[in-house]
Amino acid sequence: MKLIRVVPYGLGPIGCATVRALLDKPGISIVGAVDIDPEKAGKDLGNVAGLGRRLGVLVSKDAAAVFKKTKPSVVTHTTSSFFKSAYDQLALAASQGINVVSSTEELLYPHLRNPDLARKLDRLACRNGATLLGTGVNPGFVMDTLALVLTGVVKRVDRIRIERRVNAATRRQPLQRKVGAGMKPEEFVKLAKQGKIGHIGLLESMYLVAAGLGWKLDKHAERIEPVIAATRQTTEYFTVEPEEVAGIKHTASGFCGKRLVIDLDLRMYIGAQDPCDRIEIEGDPNLTLMIPGGVPGDVATVASLINAIPRVLEAEPGLKTMLDLPVPRAFRAI
Amino acid sequence: MKLIRVVPYGLGPIGCATVRALLDKPGISIVGAVDIDPEKAGKDLGNVAGLGRRLGVLVSKDAAAVFKKTKPSVVTHTTSSFFKSAYDQLALAASQGINVVSSTEELLYPHLRNPDLARKLDRLACRNGATLLGTGVNPGFVMDTLALVLTGVVKRVDRIRIERRVNAATRRQPLQRKVGAGMKPEEFVKLAKQGKIGHIGLLESMYLVAAGLGWKLDKHAERIEPVIAATRQTTEYFTVEPEEVAGIKHTASGFCGKRLVIDLDLRMYIGAQDPCDRIEIEGDPNLTLMIPGGVPGDVATVASLINAIPRVLEAEPGLKTMLDLPVPRAFRAI
Repeated sequence: MKLIRVVPYGLGPIGCATVRALLDKPGISIVGAVDIDPEKAGKDLGNVAGLGRRLGVLVSKDAAAVFKKTKPSVVTHTTSSFFKSAYDQLALAASQGINVVSSTEELLYPHLRNPDLARKLDRLACRNGATLLGTGVNPGFVMDTLALVLTGVVKRVDRIRIERRVNAATRRQPLQRKVGAGMKPEEFVKLAKQGKIGHIGLLESMYLVAAGLGWKLDKHAERIEPVIAATRQTTEYFTVEPEEVAGIKHTASGFCGKRLVIDLDLRMYIGAQDPCDRIEIEGDPNLTLMIPGGVPGDVATVASLINAIPRVLEAEPGLKTMLDLPVPRAFRAI
Repeated sequence: MKLIRVVPYGLGPIGCATVRALLDKPGISIVGAVDIDPEKAGKDLGNVAGLGRRLGVLVSKDAAAVFKKTKPSVVTHTTSSFFKSAYDQLALAASQGINVVSSTEELLYPHLRNPDLARKLDRLACRNGATLLGTGVNPGFVMDTLALVLTGVVKRVDRIRIERRVNAATRRQPLQRKVGAGMKPEEFVKLAKQGKIGHIGLLESMYLVAAGLGWKLDKHAERIEPVIAATRQTTEYFTVEPEEVAGIKHTASGFCGKRLVIDLDLRMYIGAQDPCDRIEIEGDPNLTLMIPGGVPGDVATVASLINAIPRVLEAEPGLKTMLDLPVPRAFRAI
């Protein structure tokens, strides 16, 4: 078994969970760690990641120095949701020929909002022999890759509808806050208008599916609305009163000409009944796929990142998407 | 859109359905057709495929001549369930550098029963620049690829259970016959012992999943049993009396050491209630995926073959499996 040398970059909740999961895998060596937070830099990674033991790896603010010194096979990158914010970090790895698996939501389909940056990063990666991939569970799996896979046994696709219902009460506090739990509806609507609330990556999911099917979407519509609590809802972190915001309903629709061909409907709120992921294909044949309970967000995102490592290591250099790599599957998982 | 030149090889029910589906796709040209049946050779493909119109393509018995004359981009191959029986046909295409997408069940994972032949065919394909793939819906999708894809968001896999329930009454006559509908139980048991009844490809599915996860199975168990009708069941083709065979239950289990890690349970019988495909993963996290009604066999097999064409055309040469190619998805499907 070939040893894989990993540097986690970004030690927020997902980054720390990634570190803990990497330690459970055989044949993985964490050779360095990067976070810009001065509170974390200089500390042992084991303490930062909440292991209760030292790992003998110090967290550094200086990614360039860590990359140069440790020469990792791959960086697990979990710093930002936005491609533009993450660009310099990704470019640094690419320029040193270091592969990257990233949870940056916009990186799932970076050509959507920043096609020029995507091309630039792709060229840099190709030139230096690095492979970069954005993945995760949403975006990255339940509302895009899994739907594409299901179309693999369909002759004609007329329309795809993808739904995800998450009971935010079962998720960590930052997610509950992110979906607006406990806000007044007016505040939610104001923040939504300012682009300060909403699931990041929904349009990327939609455009990845379209690209995978060779569809050119002529236009799209997107809506972000509050889900209002009907009764009092209490979680470990919040109490939501009736008429307050319980969470978010974020939808996107894509059109070929005037025809609606793809529909994404994501609801994450406290008290959501019957959480589920659901994909419906209208075509020949019609198909419905369900994951009762839904794929749990955080653990699955970490799994998705780590499971992508061997496929990224084997892929041709460049900025890749889930469309380019072999079928996802668990990696050293027994 | 690049024109893809296709030669269908084998014009049984799946081959003919493939021809009809190919004609619905833009950018596909059927440039020849092969079948060894003297009843079909010399006839127009449109008539053989039940189109009710001529296509101007004559069916030929001579695959070598057709390949040489038409130089197809890809052959859709639907002649046999068995790798050994299909070997010469596949080798002929490979030796001429012609890509193949095949419904040959054993080709899903040809290394299981015929590793030497698989290596030989792979070398031949590599040398001549051909890519060959075995795929379909079962094997090829519901009991293997889809399960692997689901593990892509799982950190630790303890056990995988895959079930498929098909109401054979909704399938074509040859399938109803194949599952033993209307037989006496003693006759079924005798045929099962002789290897003359059973779903072809179940072990291939299991070993493909294991290979995808990097598991080495130390042993496996396989059982083929009749499902006995409790009440009279009538289909378009058969009447099954109580105590007669309604169909088949075919299971396979794979072990790492003494530990059961994978379980496949396929039941195809007349009168099966609540047909469904179901994948359960025990691990971290636990996940269950369901396709209520199940993926319909024949149409999905045809879709799966055709949808694999662009990925096979773009792949490196060699004898590939579903593990090697990018995520399945529909092809020119709108």
